[in-house]
Amino acid sequence: MVNKMKWRRTHYSADIKPEMDGQEVIIMGWVHSIRALGKIIFVILRDREGTVQIVAPKQKVGDELFSQIKKLGAEDVIAVKGKVIANEKAPNGFEILPLELEVINTAKRPLPLDPAEKVPAELDTRLENRFLDLRRPKVQAIFKIRSEMLKSVRNTLYNEGFIEVNTPKLVASCTEGGTELFPISYFEREAFLGQSPQLYKQMLMATGLDRVFEIAPIFRAEEHNTRRHLNEATSIDIEMAFADDKDAMDILEKVVYNAFVDVYENRKKEIETLGIEFELPPEKFDRITYDEAIDIANAKGVEISWGEDLSREAEKAIGEEMEGLYFITDWPSEIRPFYTMPDEKNPNICKAFDLMYKDLEISSGAQRIHLYDLLVENIKKKGLNPDGFTYYLEAFKYGMPPHAGWGLGADRFTMVLTQQENIRECVLFPRDRQRLTP
Amino acid sequence: MVNKMKWRRTHYSADIKPEMDGQEVIIMGWVHSIRALGKIIFVILRDREGTVQIVAPKQKVGDELFSQIKKLGAEDVIAVKGKVIANEKAPNGFEILPLELEVINTAKRPLPLDPAEKVPAELDTRLENRFLDLRRPKVQAIFKIRSEMLKSVRNTLYNEGFIEVNTPKLVASCTEGGTELFPISYFEREAFLGQSPQLYKQMLMATGLDRVFEIAPIFRAEEHNTRRHLNEATSIDIEMAFADDKDAMDILEKVVYNAFVDVYENRKKEIETLGIEFELPPEKFDRITYDEAIDIANAKGVEISWGEDLSREAEKAIGEEMEGLYFITDWPSEIRPFYTMPDEKNPNICKAFDLMYKDLEISSGAQRIHLYDLLVENIKKKGLNPDGFTYYLEAFKYGMPPHAGWGLGADRFTMVLTQQENIRECVLFPRDRQRLTP
Repeated sequence: MVNKMKWRRTHYSADIKPEMDGQEVIIMGWVHSIRALGKIIFVILRDREGTVQIVAPKQKVGDELFSQIKKLGAEDVIAVKGKVIANEKAPNGFEILPLELEVINTAKRPLPLDPAEKVPAELDTRLENRFLDLRRPKVQAIFKIRSEMLKSVRNTLYNEGFIEVNTPKLVASCTEGGTELFPISYFEREAFLGQSPQLYKQMLMATGLDRVFEIAPIFRAEEHNTRRHLNEATSIDIEMAFADDKDAMDILEKVVYNAFVDVYENRKKEIETLGIEFELPPEKFDRITYDEAIDIANAKGVEISWGEDLSREAEKAIGEEMEGLYFITDWPSEIRPFYTMPDEKNPNICKAFDLMYKDLEISSGAQRIHLYDLLVENIKKKGLNPDGFTYYLEAFKYGMPPHAGWGLGADRFTMVLTQQENIRECVLFPRDRQRLTP
Repeated sequence: MVNKMKWRRTHYSADIKPEMDGQEVIIMGWVHSIRALGKIIFVILRDREGTVQIVAPKQKVGDELFSQIKKLGAEDVIAVKGKVIANEKAPNGFEILPLELEVINTAKRPLPLDPAEKVPAELDTRLENRFLDLRRPKVQAIFKIRSEMLKSVRNTLYNEGFIEVNTPKLVASCTEGGTELFPISYFEREAFLGQSPQLYKQMLMATGLDRVFEIAPIFRAEEHNTRRHLNEATSIDIEMAFADDKDAMDILEKVVYNAFVDVYENRKKEIETLGIEFELPPEKFDRITYDEAIDIANAKGVEISWGEDLSREAEKAIGEEMEGLYFITDWPSEIRPFYTMPDEKNPNICKAFDLMYKDLEISSGAQRIHLYDLLVENIKKKGLNPDGFTYYLEAFKYGMPPHAGWGLGADRFTMVLTQQENIRECVLFPRDRQRLTP
């Protein structure tokens, strides 16, 4: 175990090629496996980009280095200075002949979870030992794809003229209604954790910043315990002025489509590691109305009346019928939040949309109400008190342009891109009713 | 007031050039000012990218449109279809002859804060009416520069092989010590809001993800009320494995330098709007030791003994002496957090650094302790109980590589880039002891 490392890494495993035969490299990582066969030892070193085989014949490396290597155990952290030896039979066409070894840190054994194990442990055990679970290439692949997706989303939004903002997560009053909020003790006062940046991004539409986005945590004190919900999530939020629901849907299509393309082009190795069939969606997604959606559900034997929110069963029935990504539009005003703009001709329906992937809702958006009187009326209609919305409502009095926006769940979008069934697979340290650690 | 807009914007004000003489455009924004001089009306329309002059001679626009325009008031939201008329005497060399007007929304008057006013109101009034305050180009410029900075920071980190992560803000136990935490009621349990992603990003160093970054809110229940502190802030955090403090400082220099360059190159207009002298820093920043720093302070008559943290007075004295950006290194171990790696030769000092801009600390970092026994010993030495760190400590038992990292305050960095004296100028909706709204 060392306090100060002798070297710096010169190459990740994936950067070494057989053509580098004879070249000296320094590699660093974890002992993925070690096998001593008499006078030769095989060590597989694992780093972020893959694995590399180190072959140490006693005769070539000498007694001292040989016995040093022999003492290594699984998951020890090592640095190896060695020579690249092209070898057609070795994995990736080369192996490393070690010249010098530094044991950087050792691993206690047995491990509570073995990263080299083929059969994965139960999810709960894995989450308890997330730092070991994350050593498995399949698990790391999910988070590399997630990072790529976030990068792609921001690039699309920058290109579309959006400005990044940070809105507060500590808020004074119960807002929006609907979802439960977590209360905080804020000095002498009570405050709450923001369930979404909705009211703030709308207020920003009155500023002339025009197009804003934020990627940040949201907090929902909902009691349900499903494979699609967490109490802390990462939300990709946009809001755009001088725009309607159709404009917002166009941006959402670009964001989602480009993320698929960027993951496909830049994360081929991770897609392969996950062993998934990765297909690019069309550039434009199907659009069905709420009416059509409930017709599909009813036709499949799931009873649902007009005006009801889609039950889990209805979502599943519709998801079976629809392929990949699709919008559901023209929702009943009754079941959408107070700030949703009603349709001009038929105020019973509104300019809201959900973006679905099969049976999973990944985004929700709408054109919002920008007219003060209509907004106050709608707040009251939902049984809420306009007095709780003073600051928000102020922004609608002095020149608020029409605007629209959406929230896209980063965790759920990662589920779609990596084809995971449980949202906990796509969050490093998930938070649910039961789990608040690590 | 309209529910559905007739048109979409074809050009922002800044996109229109005198060479477009005769071309038809649709512009949208707020009535910045209106002046009727008998049979001619001048309207200045303001959008995100600037202002444009609309000139409406009664004789040319006709009675109906003329009287429509005459009724406009300050801060009404309008769309104008008009013709570009090159005119050397007009601002930017052109004006717009209106052909058609749509009043999209009206503004109640008087305004609680006038965006067109030359003399700004008190900060408190401005923050109360932030949506109006943000209509002022000088205020918007700060947030455009902030967005540019965040984009630049991420680009540098992507280029340096960092992966973006999201760590939880809801945490189970009082961690780190030092700063006060906000308690949350989490279903049946008590939880806390994360004061920094420190322990999580360190745990991730045991995973092999190697280089991670996160830009996210942090929450500190500190009681002080200064121009440099907020209770909710945005922190840019990185952590890198197989690295020491010097490696982390190199990355920090690149991140900060590149952000200066990107703001300088891409936000010239905003720099001009702010009226600031914007100078690029050198690529490498000066480095002084803590010992040298207290010598400077003492020489300037600020009494400070070795082992004390730098007082505000000491920071000011040192800031007067040092120019621009500089590191302070080799801090006494006593005054740095428990996870800071002590120096091999002299454990009284440690591998910590602060990045200062004049008298403002904008970043703090260190090589961390990766050795389990030393870490436990240090936790105890600081009077903390290792039992409170179970999950964190587990990650150090099974192969933790040496690692280093830093946190860079996004709000403070924005202060530096925009030359603001109060952190509240650089946060859309600041949170302090007194302010929890809007």
